Amino acid sequence: MKNDTGKTGLSHLDDQGQAKMVDVTAKDETIREAVACGTVRMQPATVRLIQEGGLTKGDVFSAARLAGIMAAKKTWELIPLCHPLMLTSVDVFFSSNAERGEITLEARSTTIGRTGVEMEALTAVSVAALTIYDMCKAVDRGMVISEIFLQSKKGGRSGTFDRSVSFPPGRSGS
Amino acid sequence: MKNDTGKTGLSHLDDQGQAKMVDVTAKDETIREAVACGTVRMQPATVRLIQEGGLTKGDVFSAARLAGIMAAKKTWELIPLCHPLMLTSVDVFFSSNAERGEITLEARSTTIGRTGVEMEALTAVSVAALTIYDMCKAVDRGMVISEIFLQSKKGGRSGTFDRSVSFPPGRSGS
Amino acid sequence: MKNDTGKTGLSHLDDQGQAKMVDVTAKDETIREAVACGTVRMQPATVRLIQEGGLTKGDVFSAARLAGIMAAKKTWELIPLCHPLMLTSVDVFFSSNAERGEITLEARSTTIGRTGVEMEALTAVSVAALTIYDMCKAVDRGMVISEIFLQSKKGGRSGTFDRSVSFPPGRSGS
Amino acid sequence: MKNDTGKTGLSHLDDQGQAKMVDVTAKDETIREAVACGTVRMQPATVRLIQEGGLTKGDVFSAARLAGIMAAKKTWELIPLCHPLMLTSVDVFFSSNAERGEITLEARSTTIGRTGVEMEALTAVSVAALTIYDMCKAVDRGMVISEIFLQSKKGGRSGTFDRSVSFPPGRSGS
Amino acid sequence: MKNDTGKTGLSHLDDQGQAKMVDVTAKDETIREAVACGTVRMQPATVRLIQEGGLTKGDVFSAARLAGIMAAKKTWELIPLCHPLMLTSVDVFFSSNAERGEITLEARSTTIGRTGVEMEALTAVSVAALTIYDMCKAVDRGMVISEIFLQSKKGGRSGTFDRSVSFPPGRSGS
Amino acid sequence: MKNDTGKTGLSHLDDQGQAKMVDVTAKDETIREAVACGTVRMQPATVRLIQEGGLTKGDVFSAARLAGIMAAKKTWELIPLCHPLMLTSVDVFFSSNAERGEITLEARSTTIGRTGVEMEALTAVSVAALTIYDMCKAVDRGMVISEIFLQSKKGGRSGTFDRSVSFPPGRSGS
Repeated sequence: MKNDTGKTGLSHLDDQGQAKMVDVTAKDETIREAVACGTVRMQPATVRLIQEGGLTKGDVFSAARLAGIMAAKKTWELIPLCHPLMLTSVDVFFSSNAERGEITLEARSTTIGRTGVEMEALTAVSVAALTIYDMCKAVDRGMVISEIFLQSKKGGRSGTFDRSVSFPPGRSGS
Repeated sequence: MKNDTGKTGLSHLDDQGQAKMVDVTAKDETIREAVACGTVRMQPATVRLIQEGGLTKGDVFSAARLAGIMAAKKTWELIPLCHPLMLTSVDVFFSSNAERGEITLEARSTTIGRTGVEMEALTAVSVAALTIYDMCKAVDRGMVISEIFLQSKKGGRSGTFDRSVSFPPGRSGS
Repeated sequence: MKNDTGKTGLSHLDDQGQAKMVDVTAKDETIREAVACGTVRMQPATVRLIQEGGLTKGDVFSAARLAGIMAAKKTWELIPLCHPLMLTSVDVFFSSNAERGEITLEARSTTIGRTGVEMEALTAVSVAALTIYDMCKAVDRGMVISEIFLQSKKGGRSGTFDRSVSFPPGRSGS
Repeated sequence: MKNDTGKTGLSHLDDQGQAKMVDVTAKDETIREAVACGTVRMQPATVRLIQEGGLTKGDVFSAARLAGIMAAKKTWELIPLCHPLMLTSVDVFFSSNAERGEITLEARSTTIGRTGVEMEALTAVSVAALTIYDMCKAVDRGMVISEIFLQSKKGGRSGTFDRSVSFPPGRSGS
Repeated sequence: MKNDTGKTGLSHLDDQGQAKMVDVTAKDETIREAVACGTVRMQPATVRLIQEGGLTKGDVFSAARLAGIMAAKKTWELIPLCHPLMLTSVDVFFSSNAERGEITLEARSTTIGRTGVEMEALTAVSVAALTIYDMCKAVDRGMVISEIFLQSKKGGRSGTFDRSVSFPPGRSGS
Repeated sequence: MKNDTGKTGLSHLDDQGQAKMVDVTAKDETIREAVACGTVRMQPATVRLIQEGGLTKGDVFSAARLAGIMAAKKTWELIPLCHPLMLTSVDVFFSSNAERGEITLEARSTTIGRTGVEMEALTAVSVAALTIYDMCKAVDRGMVISEIFLQSKKGGRSGTFDRSVSFPPGRSGS
């Protein structure tokens, strides 16, 4: 019985442990969706600086949102073994909590194709978080980008994954 | 007295809160170095799969290392307000601990130029971590990319930053 | 009744005015075509320099044509909210009139997909025009790139657009 | 006496009319600046839609500004014979006039290097204008991108160029 | 009777000899495969250096393999008239013979689309070979990259090509 | 005594055989030049097709020349461990011999920097050759890209290399 993950259990390594792109030629074109999350921790004062004033806040999140969307489209260029694919949508959302000193990010990506879009959602979150770091680093070099994970995915042979079911609150995940 | 961070306190926002690249024309060309860190948390069994066998381990870290190095060179393309710069070196290092279920990453970047290389080191860590995620996701979708931060920087007008001095163990950082 | 352009009337801004890619997941794959035009105005002598000699003329237009075609393929990388798509053809045409001191450009692009190719045709014209500027700027810095517009489009839910019908000669367009 | 523009008068064509990059090895590293302008003409109602509401306006210009800045950094990748260079600053500005149905754009670019930054400023204006087109095209397909030109340049062997001196109002330019 | 290669016999040149992308809009989406080969000739001692030690060998081929895979995905960006396409698989293989002082490369690429993947396989081989050159050049500047050719292709209107049939051993090929 | 090539003798592998960029921070900025060559072998009739007619010939070489120049500028993006650098010139030349069924290519690259430009010249030749292949493949699938090598280099610590001295005609090279 042949499966995706080969004898090593890691799908991108062939029988000699050499990196390769998974062959998706025989997979069906289906709607694939993914949601990824992340957090940027910073000084409460830094969160407030971002929140203050209409345009100022607008522009920090606006730059991070565009950077995340543009990076999602380049995922196949950044991650060596990712397949090129044609995203049909990407969205990046932010919420901020000055008291806890954190900004949380969520990215959603969709395609109709032969391969999933988890890496696109995760890349959008990562580059949006890096952009927040870049725009605020002059006032707060101690920021930490944290808890970037896949929240859920749908579509494709491996089916649906929902982190809140796999790792419900009250139980520790990996 | 004029300074980098303008009246909003955020250096990439001009007086109307509009995003702009910091003008570094008048800055000196000096040696700039940065070190960034990050962690990928996963099932202990996933760490062991990566560690097992010579070539198998070699290739996961090897792919992540190259992806991180190549992404560092593209930082200016990914982060909207980063300046293009010519890296004179980039290195990405890994260590793994199966018991704790974690792989830690460290990236070091250097340039001789008018602007710092913090974003290059942070981008190298982020994309190397995403590559580890991509290569292992078939066996462990619950992995979490975490604690990406600037460890230290040297060179340039804002001087030296060392996180272990700013946030020594035993004191909580941001 | 929900439509593409939301309550703001601008399709790329969501309900809070935040930039987003239009979700085209539910759209049909159809043949999409677009034609865009543009003009570069310059000294009559500059037009003549370009026209003179076989290879010389060949190479200015040849470089501009290739630059336009290559840029069309990168439209999704340049325009933040454009979808990646797979062009099935791109062509760039030139005509020159030394007396009027102008070179006119036309680009045609086609795809089979869920989203239109207007931006691809407009990007091809823009970058071809910039390339003409670049190749002639040593002799004529006063050149002006002008009248870049969408001539026509076909395919997709919003149907056919033909500028010569919407804005016939003798009536002023927008 | 050898000069930059060769016997054809066009600096990017060698003696056989074949395209080539100008050799700038022997040029001095100096501060180079350029300012470029452009206009997007549209229905007055479209200008008003962009202007209305704080964030909505912010985001159209914000996306166009970032797209322009990011494109300026990629000029050498888009324009075949442009040299790679390290921009030390790029800025993109907008002003809008609903009555006249126009948005005007200005981009300023700076480097310290062996070659000018005119193409970077012109590319920033062009891609920012295309982004405005993309974001508004659902409500106004008749928009026209117009009057993209070099306003001024400083630095380098060919010295200073100021369009308002070369082509003062009241005299027609090329 | 109209065919792909027009009156000049070269498919990328239109009737006036001007470069253009072949229009593939009317072609069928079929599975397309290609295999390309190449050789890097070097000092026997250089081959042995690459072969020696587990990780060392692993990493030279590993870097070349990833570089080849990543370049295959960018073929449409490098080759002016190539169509963008979505590779469903790419593989790069190496074998080495120290006595003969050569490393041979083979790349296989697959897509489901309207255009072939020969250029993707050839680009993978070329960039993998250049990467081997880059990693070994400090010890052997005399290396020669040689015999890069298409071994076979399947799918699409022009049907199957197999070099070992067209140019069997014992008969000289082109 | 420490040197560039470390204990493995390969400069891009660190002490554990892990790929890394060579650290060039301490190297001097000097003028660096490189010349690379290559050959595309094809049917004599294919060479004649390319040579026939003014514009037709112009455009095949013109496309290949531009593709080579543009690829040289992207070398650092394609070759994982190459440093980004700012080319001050790139040229690509062709000559053709229908009787022998071959087109020969030569690329010259120059920079002022801390690292050599051999890979840039070799990449220009490789991508120009691939472009010739792409433009002629409809009439001749049996073409072979061959003998890509470094002809000479100047500048930098490792000094001058001239292949015609190292491997003079009459003596076999590697």
